[in-house]
Amino acid sequence: MITRKRENWLRMLFIWRGSVLSKILPRLLLLALFSVFIYQYHGVLFHYKIALNPAAFTLVGVALAIFLGFCNSAAYDRYWEGRKLWGALLTDSRSLVRQVLAYVTSADSQAGHTNLFVQLAIANAYALKHQLRNTNPAGDLNRLLPTSLSATLLQRQFIPVLILKEMAVWLKIQEQQGRLDAITKMGIDQNLDKLSSVVGGCERIKNTPIPFPYHVLLHRTVYIYCFMLPFGLVDSIGWMTPVMVTFIGYTFMALDAIVEEISEPFGNEPNDLALNAMSLTIEHSLLEMAGLPVPPNVWLPGPIID
Amino acid sequence: MITRKRENWLRMLFIWRGSVLSKILPRLLLLALFSVFIYQYHGVLFHYKIALNPAAFTLVGVALAIFLGFCNSAAYDRYWEGRKLWGALLTDSRSLVRQVLAYVTSADSQAGHTNLFVQLAIANAYALKHQLRNTNPAGDLNRLLPTSLSATLLQRQFIPVLILKEMAVWLKIQEQQGRLDAITKMGIDQNLDKLSSVVGGCERIKNTPIPFPYHVLLHRTVYIYCFMLPFGLVDSIGWMTPVMVTFIGYTFMALDAIVEEISEPFGNEPNDLALNAMSLTIEHSLLEMAGLPVPPNVWLPGPIID
Amino acid sequence: MITRKRENWLRMLFIWRGSVLSKILPRLLLLALFSVFIYQYHGVLFHYKIALNPAAFTLVGVALAIFLGFCNSAAYDRYWEGRKLWGALLTDSRSLVRQVLAYVTSADSQAGHTNLFVQLAIANAYALKHQLRNTNPAGDLNRLLPTSLSATLLQRQFIPVLILKEMAVWLKIQEQQGRLDAITKMGIDQNLDKLSSVVGGCERIKNTPIPFPYHVLLHRTVYIYCFMLPFGLVDSIGWMTPVMVTFIGYTFMALDAIVEEISEPFGNEPNDLALNAMSLTIEHSLLEMAGLPVPPNVWLPGPIID
Amino acid sequence: MITRKRENWLRMLFIWRGSVLSKILPRLLLLALFSVFIYQYHGVLFHYKIALNPAAFTLVGVALAIFLGFCNSAAYDRYWEGRKLWGALLTDSRSLVRQVLAYVTSADSQAGHTNLFVQLAIANAYALKHQLRNTNPAGDLNRLLPTSLSATLLQRQFIPVLILKEMAVWLKIQEQQGRLDAITKMGIDQNLDKLSSVVGGCERIKNTPIPFPYHVLLHRTVYIYCFMLPFGLVDSIGWMTPVMVTFIGYTFMALDAIVEEISEPFGNEPNDLALNAMSLTIEHSLLEMAGLPVPPNVWLPGPIID
Amino acid sequence: MITRKRENWLRMLFIWRGSVLSKILPRLLLLALFSVFIYQYHGVLFHYKIALNPAAFTLVGVALAIFLGFCNSAAYDRYWEGRKLWGALLTDSRSLVRQVLAYVTSADSQAGHTNLFVQLAIANAYALKHQLRNTNPAGDLNRLLPTSLSATLLQRQFIPVLILKEMAVWLKIQEQQGRLDAITKMGIDQNLDKLSSVVGGCERIKNTPIPFPYHVLLHRTVYIYCFMLPFGLVDSIGWMTPVMVTFIGYTFMALDAIVEEISEPFGNEPNDLALNAMSLTIEHSLLEMAGLPVPPNVWLPGPIID
Repeated sequence: MITRKRENWLRMLFIWRGSVLSKILPRLLLLALFSVFIYQYHGVLFHYKIALNPAAFTLVGVALAIFLGFCNSAAYDRYWEGRKLWGALLTDSRSLVRQVLAYVTSADSQAGHTNLFVQLAIANAYALKHQLRNTNPAGDLNRLLPTSLSATLLQRQFIPVLILKEMAVWLKIQEQQGRLDAITKMGIDQNLDKLSSVVGGCERIKNTPIPFPYHVLLHRTVYIYCFMLPFGLVDSIGWMTPVMVTFIGYTFMALDAIVEEISEPFGNEPNDLALNAMSLTIEHSLLEMAGLPVPPNVWLPGPIID
Repeated sequence: MITRKRENWLRMLFIWRGSVLSKILPRLLLLALFSVFIYQYHGVLFHYKIALNPAAFTLVGVALAIFLGFCNSAAYDRYWEGRKLWGALLTDSRSLVRQVLAYVTSADSQAGHTNLFVQLAIANAYALKHQLRNTNPAGDLNRLLPTSLSATLLQRQFIPVLILKEMAVWLKIQEQQGRLDAITKMGIDQNLDKLSSVVGGCERIKNTPIPFPYHVLLHRTVYIYCFMLPFGLVDSIGWMTPVMVTFIGYTFMALDAIVEEISEPFGNEPNDLALNAMSLTIEHSLLEMAGLPVPPNVWLPGPIID
Repeated sequence: MITRKRENWLRMLFIWRGSVLSKILPRLLLLALFSVFIYQYHGVLFHYKIALNPAAFTLVGVALAIFLGFCNSAAYDRYWEGRKLWGALLTDSRSLVRQVLAYVTSADSQAGHTNLFVQLAIANAYALKHQLRNTNPAGDLNRLLPTSLSATLLQRQFIPVLILKEMAVWLKIQEQQGRLDAITKMGIDQNLDKLSSVVGGCERIKNTPIPFPYHVLLHRTVYIYCFMLPFGLVDSIGWMTPVMVTFIGYTFMALDAIVEEISEPFGNEPNDLALNAMSLTIEHSLLEMAGLPVPPNVWLPGPIID
Repeated sequence: MITRKRENWLRMLFIWRGSVLSKILPRLLLLALFSVFIYQYHGVLFHYKIALNPAAFTLVGVALAIFLGFCNSAAYDRYWEGRKLWGALLTDSRSLVRQVLAYVTSADSQAGHTNLFVQLAIANAYALKHQLRNTNPAGDLNRLLPTSLSATLLQRQFIPVLILKEMAVWLKIQEQQGRLDAITKMGIDQNLDKLSSVVGGCERIKNTPIPFPYHVLLHRTVYIYCFMLPFGLVDSIGWMTPVMVTFIGYTFMALDAIVEEISEPFGNEPNDLALNAMSLTIEHSLLEMAGLPVPPNVWLPGPIID
Repeated sequence: MITRKRENWLRMLFIWRGSVLSKILPRLLLLALFSVFIYQYHGVLFHYKIALNPAAFTLVGVALAIFLGFCNSAAYDRYWEGRKLWGALLTDSRSLVRQVLAYVTSADSQAGHTNLFVQLAIANAYALKHQLRNTNPAGDLNRLLPTSLSATLLQRQFIPVLILKEMAVWLKIQEQQGRLDAITKMGIDQNLDKLSSVVGGCERIKNTPIPFPYHVLLHRTVYIYCFMLPFGLVDSIGWMTPVMVTFIGYTFMALDAIVEEISEPFGNEPNDLALNAMSLTIEHSLLEMAGLPVPPNVWLPGPIID
């Protein structure tokens, strides 16, 4: 996620980092060169005059507006739903820890008897992050959980779900040992259900992309449109053709590139969600609630957090 | 569902598999030939000059944009709601199994005393899949359930609902045998309610299509528009008419075809939801949670999973 | 609801049944005749030349797109929310019956001691249907309920709500007779709350239409636009004016007609929701769950189900 | 709320009542006169020819479409959310009364021992109505509640919230007197939570309008656009300018006026929500459920209900 | 938040306060001067005629409409979700206080034994406000809470979450002292869960802005478009160019500025949410419910409340 502040309106025009311009620059230069070439030859290719005019492009504009508008909305919805799910992960983990800290007690409760549960809640966030990014959870699980449990979990496929089961087992043990009644247990269990929805929701976004033909259609329409555009403009605006084509091409290609990036919000690209930072926030918040020592530095400075 | 990765922007232009081009190719060729013909005769049909211009088509564009935009959104909403329902099926089945594994115990519990419940949860997913695709559930039900139960269910119409009832009866038996208190039972029962909503939601999407007149209107507007377009362009862009008409026709016909496919997300077409793969995922995840042996291979390789 | 399958793309162009063409045909013919007349007189009316051009209509197009797009979305949302509510009616009724069948038992339970509850759940669906369509519920209530109860209900105004109260009273009686504990009772009661929301939601859609001025504005804009259009096209496209005007008029008038139909989804028009079929489905599904005899035929064949 | 039926398509064109035409007529006449004036002087103002053309207005159309489309959607969402909240008020009040009537009993229950609760639920709806419309609740509260309670409430600011508290206190008293167990009490209390959401939601819509700059922007764009339009059309369509400008102006000004009206759905304008009628419906439905005498006449005849 | 009433349609055109005009005035003047300059030199810059026409700008309009429409919707959704969260904060705090006042009692309850809980609920709202605006919560916390608790909280990072934990601990103490049963406790605890969601939701909106590239793209497209526009209009509308360009530029720049403001709804700009006023409302409403003295003045007069 890029965390730049909005700048003065004039400087915004010349920002490089955080824009997707770097990504599409080669294609855009190609388009610019192509339109210079078309302008030089007045739209004549292989002795054939390609006679197009803006009106024809207005007709394509309908399709383009529908594809771009739809793909953009669908991509942003996926991005924002991903963010909401991670927000719910934070919220529900806090609720679980609040309930366990306040309600699971008995006369013989020892200090820190709820630590395992807090660690499980933290491990759940890290395990989900690693599952979504296809990275190795071994480091985090070994750091947070008892060795035997961590070793067992690392051999499994759906680790966050199994951690939720461990949390339920922990609750049952507290009930059997008299620190928890059935009513409070099932009240806490509702938050496990919510975490289960968060895990399932993230898996859904990761495993089911926007239907592939949309990408193909959007991509083809954008690029065919852009590379035919010089022929449509050269007769009426002359040497301004390359300028205008590059400007129009920039807006469409950039949107196509953003759509590609944020429609898979759990990746590692600059505009993807900052799963690392959010996992750290969850860890810090839960440790703070439990009165456990919080590691010093949460947010690393820099324009891009991951 | 097509699982191709997005490719290099240049290669995306020439992708064949996963595009709907193959489906609409005959109509598109017909349109291309028709516009070549119109160009040859300069828009004169049976000695009558069909005098149209792009401006008239801009006016139709308003209606076209509304129909295409709406039908596309409605179709995608159905697709994505179907996917969410199957995501909830996974989530809620996991929650049920987590609760039963952790909370349904007693001193005399034997290993595997919850296996029937896990099998019922798996059978529920398969039964729903078969109901949605109008396929025969006998194979899966016989494989997963006791013979007598499976035989009874196969004579019924709404099988997933009856499986949910069996799960409730199982819970009641556990309560009567002292392994479960009423509070925990009703906490678990809430997830049965959620599964009931999933089943009902899928039936709703399957049984109530987008109102038929939308399809008719969209279809007619798209095709009349496309086949009148050559007359509107031939006077101003000459021999480029077939190129431009085919390009515009491609975008509209392809969108019409995608809408047709994804608005019925539970079918067997390439862009429909991968119900088979998702049923397998549910099975594997639930077996893994219960510590039961998981069959080896989940995801078959290949660009299309069903 | 029209249940036709999508046909071959060519046949779709000539479908008559299920299209709204039959409804708007007279107006459309009037528009066609009017534009033939305008073409004959070259846009001169009472010796005054009505000098319009397509550009002026493009400006109206903005308003038209906003009205048509909005009214269409609002109408479809009402249609789809109505369908969701009836889906929830099915789902929640099933959940209630599942809970009652599985959980309301005691040593002295007689076979069929839950039949009254099942009948009440079925009667609720029929009573709601009759309320929404302003038809007489006497037949269905007498068929399903004990005579005294049915006679009392038929004198009341909000019958489905009173049936829900009867279901709650039934639950209380079971509790007093020892077949149900308070926890299970209140778990079941939550589904009565959901049914209460379904009833209230349907009443809301029925009693509060899309604000009237939208209909007026949409209607006026569409028809003034259509009947002024010939003047705008006649100078540039000549004898094609009637063809193009009829085509454009068809798309706009048809959408206006669909909006009118589906914005009141509980009516009796061809594209309204199939409340009869859905009530039958609820009856069959609940009877099947309860192991009671199911009447033979659910779905009547035919292109339109109501 | 206007409850006119849709009429024959021809009569719809000439409807006066229920249209917003009466509201915007003065401005529209001004616009019409202004464009007649511009036509007379051929777009020359103070010896300067105002040379505009439709193309320039097409560019403004983009902004206009965004503002009108957005403000309209936002306004309708507020309207419909307001309606949903009042639908939930009806639903949740019914659920509360159903629960209390069926579940709050004991051997010594006297007839009518739940009447106070029913009256509180009715008073809640009326108190909310008066709060939203800034009217005096004294009449309704005195009519419905015991004098002492009513006198206390009338000195407070947030009356519906305090009525909900009274309902909770009533439940607690029933528990203390043995007519209600804790489980049933908390099940009923969930519906008090829902009513609390309804009250808060209505306050939110009332106190937070659509951000003011949107109104200013929309308003300015619409009126500047309309009054510049004659200059843009007069050269190409001549004496049709006043007709076309008035038509276009009507569509835009009317939408602006509708947006203004329905974005504050709890007011007294013709298209606002019928809070009076809905309060009456709530009263009648709750009294009917409780078997109490229902006042005779609910819906007053007439095209506008408030 | 600006609380001006809508005025007479004529006065709306000349409103200064509450419009964003003051913010964008310098840029707008620059644009106006620039187009006067272009008009003077007939679009010739450094001896080169910049030959553009409106048609080319129509093509850019597609992209502009998509960016502006999307960014505007996304920004308003954030604003309205922020408002909904603060509405839920009010609602859920009231529900908590209602439950505690009515249900937490015992024979030995002293007057005011629930005051600490009410103060915690009020402190929660203020703490959230300070966290969202990065202001110092010391004043409010010291005012509302016991000194020792306030001192501890002020050293922490996520203060509202810790206050929720204190509320849960308070509930547990009441249970241990016999004033509360487990069932009622867990019913109340559900509202703590909801408050946890409110806190998490607000943090989400604050910490995750609209993806940065959208701002860059929108900004660039708007400003490049506006400053190229004079060249496109000067040949056809002559001396009206500065007027029209300034008008079009105003609509686009103003929308860009509104989007910037309301997309971060928890700030201090004129159109941001009135967190101060809402915190005060929460305090007053909760104190009124608890029968505690309410400070006199809630809403300060003035067109802008913060």
